[in-house]
Amino acid sequence: MKVSVELCVVPLGVGVSVGDHVATCQRVLAEEGFEVQMHAYGTNFEGEWDAVMAAVRRCHEVVHANGAPRIFTSMKLGTRTDREQSLDDKIDSIRARLDDTPPGPD
Amino acid sequence: MKVSVELCVVPLGVGVSVGDHVATCQRVLAEEGFEVQMHAYGTNFEGEWDAVMAAVRRCHEVVHANGAPRIFTSMKLGTRTDREQSLDDKIDSIRARLDDTPPGPD
Amino acid sequence: MKVSVELCVVPLGVGVSVGDHVATCQRVLAEEGFEVQMHAYGTNFEGEWDAVMAAVRRCHEVVHANGAPRIFTSMKLGTRTDREQSLDDKIDSIRARLDDTPPGPD
Amino acid sequence: MKVSVELCVVPLGVGVSVGDHVATCQRVLAEEGFEVQMHAYGTNFEGEWDAVMAAVRRCHEVVHANGAPRIFTSMKLGTRTDREQSLDDKIDSIRARLDDTPPGPD
Repeated sequence: MKVSVELCVVPLGVGVSVGDHVATCQRVLAEEGFEVQMHAYGTNFEGEWDAVMAAVRRCHEVVHANGAPRIFTSMKLGTRTDREQSLDDKIDSIRARLDDTPPGPD
Repeated sequence: MKVSVELCVVPLGVGVSVGDHVATCQRVLAEEGFEVQMHAYGTNFEGEWDAVMAAVRRCHEVVHANGAPRIFTSMKLGTRTDREQSLDDKIDSIRARLDDTPPGPD
Repeated sequence: MKVSVELCVVPLGVGVSVGDHVATCQRVLAEEGFEVQMHAYGTNFEGEWDAVMAAVRRCHEVVHANGAPRIFTSMKLGTRTDREQSLDDKIDSIRARLDDTPPGPD
Repeated sequence: MKVSVELCVVPLGVGVSVGDHVATCQRVLAEEGFEVQMHAYGTNFEGEWDAVMAAVRRCHEVVHANGAPRIFTSMKLGTRTDREQSLDDKIDSIRARLDDTPPGPD
């Protein structure tokens, strides 16, 4: 089963700046072969369910190993059986609507 | 690695009422041996990482098999290496604080 | 517009234990007149949109005032126009399904 | 109080395709004067707390008016008192780390 994911890892107990740990997760996901789309509130990627979840687990393991005693992660998961839809498809479908039907004056 | 989870499965394309599918997930989690704490915005449970993720995957598979063409799931995940903390511990620690130090007039 | 909410406030930069700040939010919500349902991954409550959002804002203000330099909050919001549904209704509707149709042997 | 937000609006009871409603929200946020960063799992923007929450409320109102009887919204909220940090700052800080310390062969 293919799944598209948003992953947002928040390490606790490491002070106010969490960027080093977020960067570590980016590297883990890249090493696991995922093409990621980073944004200001997480990282989106897609793949086979088990590979995705193994990668998220490795993010937790590495962030803990790097000194974070506690991790709070927020995820969104999307699966569908009606058709294939990549992350890019999702964005394109909204962009197309916005281009086709501009808001207009009111 | 032990993980505590909040799982909130939202099936799309099945109309406005999603309760049947939510109930299905409850049954899946019970069958997988998890003791769950249901609330109005999801279900909390805890266990070994791989078993938890396999159970969430099975929720998606069963909800799809029951007719939902698309699923949007929101999850929270918590891991910690400093000490063990169950879901009940988390709630108890807040309740104890609220009992010990009542809000008072100011 | 009535909204039902799950609120999960995660203060950063205050160490690994965040319970004091979570308890503070419980008190703020109680002071604002909300009846809350606390669980291990947040607090559920409901009310008029503007009152709810003002209360969440006050949670942020108080948690900052108590020493947290950064807050990461996760919320779920539900609104519906087809009928009224309280947080208790949501839970009851799942419980009724689980009672009515036990999982059975397969 | 300034807040940075991720907004993910999921309309229920409108079938499997929710893109029209998501596009509507993009237009509402633009009309309200926000510069948005759309991604595959939501839209990030920032502004004063009350203006942000009023815009999210208007998204719900417009999506309901357009025919969605039920809305499930997921939000992330970030506030900080130690320093100003825009959405772009957040992304830049991760990108800088990834550039400075490439993953390397191991």
